[in-house]
Amino acid sequence: MTPISMHAASAPAFAKMLGNMLTWLEAAKAHAETRKFSTDVYLTLRLAPDMLPFAKQIQIASDAAKGCVARLGGQEIPKYEDNEATLDELAERIKKTRDFVLSVPAEAFADSEEREIVIPRRSGDPLKFDGSTYLRHFALPNFYFHATTTYALLRHAGVPLGKSDYLGG
Amino acid sequence: MTPISMHAASAPAFAKMLGNMLTWLEAAKAHAETRKFSTDVYLTLRLAPDMLPFAKQIQIASDAAKGCVARLGGQEIPKYEDNEATLDELAERIKKTRDFVLSVPAEAFADSEEREIVIPRRSGDPLKFDGSTYLRHFALPNFYFHATTTYALLRHAGVPLGKSDYLGG
Repeated sequence: MTPISMHAASAPAFAKMLGNMLTWLEAAKAHAETRKFSTDVYLTLRLAPDMLPFAKQIQIASDAAKGCVARLGGQEIPKYEDNEATLDELAERIKKTRDFVLSVPAEAFADSEEREIVIPRRSGDPLKFDGSTYLRHFALPNFYFHATTTYALLRHAGVPLGKSDYLGG
Repeated sequence: MTPISMHAASAPAFAKMLGNMLTWLEAAKAHAETRKFSTDVYLTLRLAPDMLPFAKQIQIASDAAKGCVARLGGQEIPKYEDNEATLDELAERIKKTRDFVLSVPAEAFADSEEREIVIPRRSGDPLKFDGSTYLRHFALPNFYFHATTTYALLRHAGVPLGKSDYLGG
């Protein structure tokens, strides 16, 4: 029995979905060209008035991926400015996130399943987990939440995407 | 270095999110009572005309969880009728899925990371993976896709839910 490593369960999964997200943005751009609207329109779309807009969904998906890989890999979390103002800049944000996620060597994740992970919150006490619980019950579902919400906003906006674009090839 | 087991990376994560989904359905029921509409209305909601409706999102989340645990745990996949016609019946579907997911012993997942997994498709050749790739790049993102879409439909319908309801306590 060779179980999966903390690295294998995190970084390659984030990297693959981030790559899928780039193809959704390409489809969104083509859709806007065909229908003759500005791609800027996407950035403020929301599924509900009290849900975060499209640009923020991508920024948080990025934060979830880089935060998880940095915490489990014992690295400083890269700080991005959250100032992306166009679809192209959001694509760049996704690319640099993917580059970072793939840059941390698998060996750096050694023993991360038992490492204490502390996540500060805006209000209330910070969340505390061991690395394994953090990855399985927080980081992965959180990352896929923001990836799926990004996809859902594009589908809602009429971008022709399907399940295979979500899962990737 | 004690990596995570195939069991720990799958069954408990599915079980937890399925439990979270039950609390969303409770909130949806309370919202319908307050606003005086039938809970039946939820079942046919869609985020886009060519996306699957609410009831189907829950059925597929259930299929993703039970299919993954059965395949990795070497069990027959339980067959459900996909005939849920009310919110309560959808909640029952979620509960029996969770019961199944938790019923397969961790030992049954031994060596599942190398087992060949074959997923039939409606059209085209079946998808083939080793168990580890199947879990990390197909089963988990697919399950969270349908859970998040279920959540998004409820948020879009005005049900008062927040991120902590998605992630659970």
